[in-house]
Amino acid sequence: MGPAAPSETLCVFCEIVSGRSPAYKVYEDEKNVAFLDLFPFTKGHLLVVPKVHVPRLTDLPESEYQNFLRAVSTVCRRVERISQDYNIALNQGARAGQIVFHLHFHVIPRYDNENPFGTDRPRLEAGEAADLVAALSAP
Amino acid sequence: MGPAAPSETLCVFCEIVSGRSPAYKVYEDEKNVAFLDLFPFTKGHLLVVPKVHVPRLTDLPESEYQNFLRAVSTVCRRVERISQDYNIALNQGARAGQIVFHLHFHVIPRYDNENPFGTDRPRLEAGEAADLVAALSAP
Repeated sequence: MGPAAPSETLCVFCEIVSGRSPAYKVYEDEKNVAFLDLFPFTKGHLLVVPKVHVPRLTDLPESEYQNFLRAVSTVCRRVERISQDYNIALNQGARAGQIVFHLHFHVIPRYDNENPFGTDRPRLEAGEAADLVAALSAP
Repeated sequence: MGPAAPSETLCVFCEIVSGRSPAYKVYEDEKNVAFLDLFPFTKGHLLVVPKVHVPRLTDLPESEYQNFLRAVSTVCRRVERISQDYNIALNQGARAGQIVFHLHFHVIPRYDNENPFGTDRPRLEAGEAADLVAALSAP
């Protein structure tokens, strides 16, 4: 299976994987990519995405589990540069809040005990994005 | 590394892994176990736990990634018997809501569009637990 098998319909994450759409990438390997969420719940909220288009974890070929979880863990280690505490979340299905039907783990740094998961998600500002990419891209 | 390396202090999940504490187990393999959360956010809320005691995903040996994500995915397939929609969540650190410092993925079935993540988490009732173990334990 190729790293960027096209989805049947236009998929915003496949567009990022292929380079047709821009993104604030912070990590990339042969099989996976991670980039900042454009409407972050908290500073540094990012997504880890396998390049192959599958909607769910249960659709991912077993041969990809090792690669995918290593990418998630690698990104988490980098997130620990900005906060030791973070949520990792995977929403499966519309009733669970899945909006883009291309498998993705959210990694959401936490800075205090307040619940950041409201509906107010202001768009990421370019300057802050550049700072975060600098902090998170280094191996 | 053994499958149930003891934690330095008493760990409630190590107690379950070793069989010293009871749990409503729904899945077990050589390296992992899954059991119902005693204070579920929704019906079928369960936890997937590696037997080795590590606090975080970033502490898990890379050699365990494949096994661990396969266990999570297997449990998710079983959860799809009761709901196609579910959240998978891993809380890292106290400010992210981690209470037990032994790595665990939550799998939380979702049944409607309402937010179930309030503070009201009534204790799992034994009869319901038995029904869920029956539904989720079959391979």
